[in-house]
Amino acid sequence: MENKNITIGLFGFGCVGQGLYDVLNHSEGLKASIEKICVRDKNKKRKIDPSFFTFDKDDILKRDNLNVIVELIDNADEAFAIVRDAMNNGVSVVSANKKMLAENFKELYQLQEKNNVALIYEGSAGGSIPIIRNLEEYYDNELLSSVRGILNGTCNYILTRMELENKDYIEILKDAQLSGFAESDPWLDVAGFDTKYKTLLLTIHAFGVVLNPDDIFNTGIQNISYDDILYAKQRGLRIKMLGVSFKAGDKFRVYTLPHFVDRESELFNVVYEYNAVEVEGAYSCKQTFVGKGAGSHPTGSAVLSDISALTYDYKYGYKKLKKALSANAKIEDGAKQIEYDFSIRLYIRFQNKEELKDLEILSIEEEHRSSTTNYIIAYVNFNSLFNIYNKKDNKLFVCAY
Amino acid sequence: MENKNITIGLFGFGCVGQGLYDVLNHSEGLKASIEKICVRDKNKKRKIDPSFFTFDKDDILKRDNLNVIVELIDNADEAFAIVRDAMNNGVSVVSANKKMLAENFKELYQLQEKNNVALIYEGSAGGSIPIIRNLEEYYDNELLSSVRGILNGTCNYILTRMELENKDYIEILKDAQLSGFAESDPWLDVAGFDTKYKTLLLTIHAFGVVLNPDDIFNTGIQNISYDDILYAKQRGLRIKMLGVSFKAGDKFRVYTLPHFVDRESELFNVVYEYNAVEVEGAYSCKQTFVGKGAGSHPTGSAVLSDISALTYDYKYGYKKLKKALSANAKIEDGAKQIEYDFSIRLYIRFQNKEELKDLEILSIEEEHRSSTTNYIIAYVNFNSLFNIYNKKDNKLFVCAY
Repeated sequence: MENKNITIGLFGFGCVGQGLYDVLNHSEGLKASIEKICVRDKNKKRKIDPSFFTFDKDDILKRDNLNVIVELIDNADEAFAIVRDAMNNGVSVVSANKKMLAENFKELYQLQEKNNVALIYEGSAGGSIPIIRNLEEYYDNELLSSVRGILNGTCNYILTRMELENKDYIEILKDAQLSGFAESDPWLDVAGFDTKYKTLLLTIHAFGVVLNPDDIFNTGIQNISYDDILYAKQRGLRIKMLGVSFKAGDKFRVYTLPHFVDRESELFNVVYEYNAVEVEGAYSCKQTFVGKGAGSHPTGSAVLSDISALTYDYKYGYKKLKKALSANAKIEDGAKQIEYDFSIRLYIRFQNKEELKDLEILSIEEEHRSSTTNYIIAYVNFNSLFNIYNKKDNKLFVCAY
Repeated sequence: MENKNITIGLFGFGCVGQGLYDVLNHSEGLKASIEKICVRDKNKKRKIDPSFFTFDKDDILKRDNLNVIVELIDNADEAFAIVRDAMNNGVSVVSANKKMLAENFKELYQLQEKNNVALIYEGSAGGSIPIIRNLEEYYDNELLSSVRGILNGTCNYILTRMELENKDYIEILKDAQLSGFAESDPWLDVAGFDTKYKTLLLTIHAFGVVLNPDDIFNTGIQNISYDDILYAKQRGLRIKMLGVSFKAGDKFRVYTLPHFVDRESELFNVVYEYNAVEVEGAYSCKQTFVGKGAGSHPTGSAVLSDISALTYDYKYGYKKLKKALSANAKIEDGAKQIEYDFSIRLYIRFQNKEELKDLEILSIEEEHRSSTTNYIIAYVNFNSLFNIYNKKDNKLFVCAY
């Protein structure tokens, strides 16, 4: 098979964009080059020749000699407009923008079908871990039962440092922001939105089920305190922020929540910015993939691997989704396959009992009250949990047990 | 892309063959069926219809309506004859026979080139872990520096039970044989040959370097005692049998040895028959893949994934090897790229000092003698270690530290 030469129009030259530039320049044998880079800030000093840059997206989108667009910008709406235009122009796209992909998946899927172009996005989930392509290609005929993982490097970095340094959330968060491990506005990461977008993408490739972000419950570590870390530590456990997606009878359960994991779990030793994904199948049993989940070079290398795949015309087959669609399912019907009315065992730390009033608590196993911290271990109706988090300013810290 | 229908001629109906049969029958949507199975024993009772079976290999090899041969027999020489004949007939082959593949790789590579057929073998290393295809496809342009792993389920199973049950090697080995986790002749597994064959295959796909089995040093757990396990346990370590292959300057170091690993390592929690592979790259950093390394269904599912890949005409690209060959390297020159003259830190348990006389010991860090056990921690010239193991009846237990 003769490989194609790839000429790239790149959108964005931030952390991942620069990482891609480095990785591509040090790659041996890949016939790909970045021809033009579209950026927003005209005054920012950049480490490569100014002639690479443009500030007008049409300078890339309307250029004839580019056969791949790599989209690595922050703004999901602008990213979607770029990706849509590129695909409508018949150009294949590599993206790592999980928010954009998750929010617009149905339209993006249809654009791929209509224009017969590739949209691939290994860098969007699990950083350097090759999870999407493995779900798509390697587990294509395996009866998968569960995909779950540590998908957000920022949360894992904060949780690791809180435990190892015995410090509180705010202190570590500030430090993480200074050292580049957390955004100046960390909400999407710490409250589980980022994990949710990635979980949504994994659910598509594992099970062929397409959801909207609002269909998936998320909470994260935004309300964690050192008391919670200490609770785990004293019991030989660690808290890990997980996105989970698994079969439960005929339905699926998909949500993001902090979880206690024990020392025997492969997730226990996954620390700092490392991510991990566990895949369970009927025959292959449990497989775990661990790798750096964030950072310029790791994510850049995932993007590079996508570019390399395009040299031999790779596209996602969406085999599980297509099978569902050919059996008369509609792409819009994903949420109907999700179960919300089930019982889940939780550790819930609260300040006053009033905060629990809208939770449907099925049974309490343990209740702890002291001058510093109050918590219960209880079985709770998941639906009621989802409902109370739709209200703002929730101060509970909730962790699956 | 329209998928091909796959009609399979299967050689062997042992553990993995039966696993494949189960997995294939429960797979949804894969257009593949087993048409005929060649087995040796005419009198064995089998759980499927006798009309499936033949005892004459030509009944499969000379049949027109088969487009894939799956080779899952024990005997490496017979397997090679079958695979060679099939490829010369223009038929693609799936195999899980690491010994056959490692011993005959050069000829098998040339057969693939000459006949333009696929030979794929994901089930040959790491059981259910998708490692070969990931090395080939995902890390194709990554500058890899190291691949190492727990590659033998029998060794890991024995080591885990020795530690958890505080029992000696012979007792656990016997029990493992009874419960099917060790062969009646366990030598290939426990002495590191199986790990070596797999390490050889990973080295081809990671680095494009082809070695003969004799080029690679192997020792394993054949001489381990509970004293060694206890030594590790008291220091918070575990012993893991590893195959390693990594860059050292311009050369590579490739060998199989037991290693102490500490609690922080992702390999620490990989227990019983689970395998793990760690891949390190310049940009992707460290990735770890964990999954069941042996067993009927896990290995069957890896073979199934290969069959599925053949429905869309997948072949290994051998990109790194081809690049080396196109730069005037010869496939026979692999061993010239391997370094043997280096210093390695070892724990060596011995019975009397005479056993150490041919070892070039560079420095001793620690020496322990007691009524029950003698060991040293020392830096040793690797070449001398390789040389003494070429003599028979070596009773040393050696573990990289």
